[in-house]
This record gives sequence, C-alpha cells and structure tokens, in this order.
Amino acid sequence: MARLQAPLSRAKEQPMQNRDFVERLETHADAVQALLGALLSDELLPDETARPANLLTAMRHGVLNGGKRMRPALVIESAALFGGDADAALRVAAALECVHCYSLIHDDLPAMDDDDMRRGQPTVHKKFDEATAILAGDSLLTYAFDILAAPETRLPDATKLALTLSLARASGIGGMAGGQALDLEAEKRELGEDEITRLQAMKTGALIRFACEAGAVAAGATEEDRRRMIRFGEIVGLAFQLRDDLLDLTADSATLGKAAGKDAARGKKTLPSIHGIQWTQHKLAGLIEEANALLSPYGGKADMLTALANHVATRNK
Amino acid sequence: MARLQAPLSRAKEQPMQNRDFVERLETHADAVQALLGALLSDELLPDETARPANLLTAMRHGVLNGGKRMRPALVIESAALFGGDADAALRVAAALECVHCYSLIHDDLPAMDDDDMRRGQPTVHKKFDEATAILAGDSLLTYAFDILAAPETRLPDATKLALTLSLARASGIGGMAGGQALDLEAEKRELGEDEITRLQAMKTGALIRFACEAGAVAAGATEEDRRRMIRFGEIVGLAFQLRDDLLDLTADSATLGKAAGKDAARGKKTLPSIHGIQWTQHKLAGLIEEANALLSPYGGKADMLTALANHVATRNK
Repeated sequence: MARLQAPLSRAKEQPMQNRDFVERLETHADAVQALLGALLSDELLPDETARPANLLTAMRHGVLNGGKRMRPALVIESAALFGGDADAALRVAAALECVHCYSLIHDDLPAMDDDDMRRGQPTVHKKFDEATAILAGDSLLTYAFDILAAPETRLPDATKLALTLSLARASGIGGMAGGQALDLEAEKRELGEDEITRLQAMKTGALIRFACEAGAVAAGATEEDRRRMIRFGEIVGLAFQLRDDLLDLTADSATLGKAAGKDAARGKKTLPSIHGIQWTQHKLAGLIEEANALLSPYGGKADMLTALANHVATRNK
Repeated sequence: MARLQAPLSRAKEQPMQNRDFVERLETHADAVQALLGALLSDELLPDETARPANLLTAMRHGVLNGGKRMRPALVIESAALFGGDADAALRVAAALECVHCYSLIHDDLPAMDDDDMRRGQPTVHKKFDEATAILAGDSLLTYAFDILAAPETRLPDATKLALTLSLARASGIGGMAGGQALDLEAEKRELGEDEITRLQAMKTGALIRFACEAGAVAAGATEEDRRRMIRFGEIVGLAFQLRDDLLDLTADSATLGKAAGKDAARGKKTLPSIHGIQWTQHKLAGLIEEANALLSPYGGKADMLTALANHVATRNK
C-alpha cells in the first residue's frame, strides 16, 4: 500500500479550485448553522410545555459554537450527487450534527476526557455545570431523532425510518458510543493495531460513514450507489482519523487550536505513533486515490466530494 | 375536587380480582424482561462490529435489575384494548423501558441525584464507573430508537415514525430531560405550585402518557381512542407522582425499599408536602374515578387498565 506521493502535494491536482471549495463549504456551514439555530429556539422546538431556558442555552452553546460542519457537508454533497432535495438533506445534516455535538459534550465531561475548552470556548460543563451538560447531551441526542421523524423532514416514510435506524446504529453501542467505551479502555491497557482500527471505525468512522450514506439514502439513490457511498464514507473516516492522529503527533498546539500531543500524554497508541509519519502520509495518499477512483464514475458532479476527502486527509488543523 | 373516599378502600371495588391482576402484571414483566435480555445480548445486538463487553454488561445491569415494568404494562394493555399485535406492542414496550432505564442511570449519577443504590443493587456508576454509566445511558437511549425503527418491529412505517416522534418528544427537552433540568433547578430555588405540576408532567408524566398513547397508536386505534388514551396516560402520570410524593412523605424506608423523606431532605416541595395527606388522598381518589369514567366505554375489556391506574394510585412502594 506504500505510495510515494505525499498527500499535501495532491491538493493542487484537484479539479476544483480551492477558493470554490472553501466558499461552498462555508455556504453549507452557514446553512446548517442557520437551521440548527432555528431548530434550537423557543419558536421551533416542538411541544408547548415549558422549555427550561438554562438547558436550551446549554444545548445551543454545545451546537452553535462554530464547528467545521464536515459531517453536514458530506450529507449535503452526497444528497446533491444523486439529485436529492436540498431542504430534506439539510435537516438530515442537522440531525447528524446534533448527535455529533452531543457526543462532544459528553466526551468533554470530567468522567470522560475532562476537557475545559473546545474551539476557544469553555466546554458545556465548564460554562454551565456537569448535570446540565449531561442533560444537554441527552436532549440533543433525543432531538436528532425528533428532527428525522418530524413531518417537516419531507422524505418518504420508509426513507426516514431507514435513516433513523442507520443513525441509531452509527451512534450506539455498535458505533460511536461503543467506540468511546473502547477508547476509555485504551487508557487502561495497550490495544493492538486491530483493536485501534476497530475502535476508530466505531468512534469516529461510523458517524462519517453515516453522513456519506445518509445523503444517498435521502436522495433515493440505487443500492449500488448507496454501497459506493458507504465505502467512500469509510475511506473519509479512515483519512480523518489518520490525519487527526498525525496532527496530534506532529503539530504544535497553536497551529492546531487545541492541545497537541494528547495521545502520547495519555499513553494512547495510534497508527501514526506506531508506524511513523512517512507511513501515515503514504497511507493518506492511498486513501485519497481510492476515494477519487470510487467516485470517478460520477465525473465532475462528484468534484466537491473528492475535494472534501482530499481536504480531510490534508488539513492542518 | 375534594372527594371523601380514600383510594385504598377502592381497591376492593375493582371488577378485576387482585390475584388475576398481579398474575397478569407478572406475565407482562416476564415477557418484557425476556425480550430486553435478548435485545441486550451478543446475539441480537445489531451490527457486527465489536461490542465493548463492559458497556454491554453495564447496560444490562441498568435494565435487567427487576423494575416493576409499569410503563411496558401500560403499552401492552393499551395495545390489547384496541386489538393490537402483541409482539409489536412488546417491542414498543421494550424501547420505552430502555428510555426509562437510561434516565434512571443518568439521574443516579453523582452530578445529578447522586444515588448509590437502586432496587437493592449498586447503581451503574457505582458498580462500574461514571464514564461507563454515562455511555450506558447514552447507548440505551440510542438503542430505543433502533428497536422502534428496526424491521423486527412489525408495524406500518407511518406508525413506527409516529411512535419515534412521540417517544423523542416525551423524552427530550420538552419532556423527561427538560423535567429533570427543572427538578435540578428546584433544589436551588423554591418552585411555585404551577411549576411543580409542570415539572412533574414533564419529568415523569410524559413517558407514562407516551406508554398509554403508544399502545393505541401501535394498534392503529382511531384518533378519538388515541386522545382518550393520552388523557388516561396523563391521569396515571399524575396519580403516579402524587402517590410517589405521598409515600416519600409518609412511608418508612424499610417499607419503601428505598430512602424515604428525600424530598424534604433536599428542600424540595411537592403537592403532598404543600397540601397535606388528606388532600392528596382525595385527589388520588378523584383521579381513579376519572380514569374509570374515561375507560367505561370499553367495558370489561379495559379492566386491566383501570386496575393498573388504581394500583398506581394506591401502591405502598
């Protein structure tokens, strides 16, 4: 699998201009931000019972703090590739982002990763308190399924149920939550390479895979296209994690905007820490090539998705 | 609303023999226990990725520890009243019980109610650790939506989506989680009677109401029947909470099987602590009468549900 070309050098070869890519990514992030802001407001939250103001504020703090919105962008572009309805895709993206943000709130808790800051802001349990952070995460996870099932998500019932089931499986014990449990175990005993790979496929991979699959499902893509997008999502997930671990190993905290060297400090092995920088860069280049090959049947229509894969594998923070 | 008849004296008037009632309740509890045990096992958990053994064990500890399974019984009997499929109702009941048990696990956490024991067993964070308890709760909440959406739940797609949406709303910020947030606030400032009522309608009422509604929805009942069951669920929820607060005020810990006098110790006002024992008993008797009147159009077919309402309002633990 060794390839000699370093991933960074490939960025220039992308058919999409970098400025177009960045602009389109920002457009998606703005759209998701606007929808999430509306969904997490007094007006649009369902039911007329009182909504505890403090809890809603905590949920907003955990969601609207300017994430990169990579997962939503994958949903939106995957739906667009197959001619899916943009509004419906945006709602699916918002539901997914609620799950992602809930997981960050709970992972940051003292009993878990014990992080005080995220994206330059105090974490939810620091700004509010632990109980509120637990409930804000619980409520966001619950709300994700509300968004998917609500009548405002204009998709066929069977599609909405398929998305509900896929999101539950990507998020639960067989996916993200299970991966986080394995990750906590990794602080107590040294995992083997297979275990590390499985942990990461669950902890970060499952939700990224869901993002790529969900767009295709929402758009009513064929089974073959859906399978292709699942594989694409797996590749993006692998690239995301490898790049993350590589940055943790090599970047300084100032560039990263968060603490670097955390894995080593916690005694956690990663594939880059086992195999080294060169191996990781070759691996990332191979993943980019695989992503390009997978989407080549779609021609220029898939440019944004291949640019996203490239970005994930080459980003510097 | 004052009624002179105390609720305990009414138990004998129920058309259903107490032994039949207890037996049928046990049958339901056994069926739910068996299904939950199967759902939370290596064989039946979805997806083939590794399932962290420790997390699965923690989830089983939080679910299979012999609760009364009142909510599942309400689902099953409400479905039976309208001729619903028993297997489908049982799966809906299991999903609901997963949400109920997740809420107990998170409520017991040190940052929340900080309880060491539940039903004579150490709570999940005591037997395992806090991180595992948070993840076990998260995974159970997620799994509830998996169970509802899974193909094994043999109900029309539209029905499954309606149940998903109702369960999400009963559990989230506008329901159970929001109620718990208000409850935490009640430890910091004294709530008014309206606020207490709203808090309880959200914290415990919403899920009990869902139980009664869900059986009717799963059985494809008419809109009128569904509305009737929603109101019945509200009455059962009110009775449950009043009886709970009354027992906390009057019973001793040995009879209760858990610590009594907790509300007073935490400075939390309840309707019984504001209005007294007599008022509460009259209120409970009134709720039983309202429940009986509501279900009278169904005749003897609803005996088990009226007996359940009576039981909830008169139980001694």
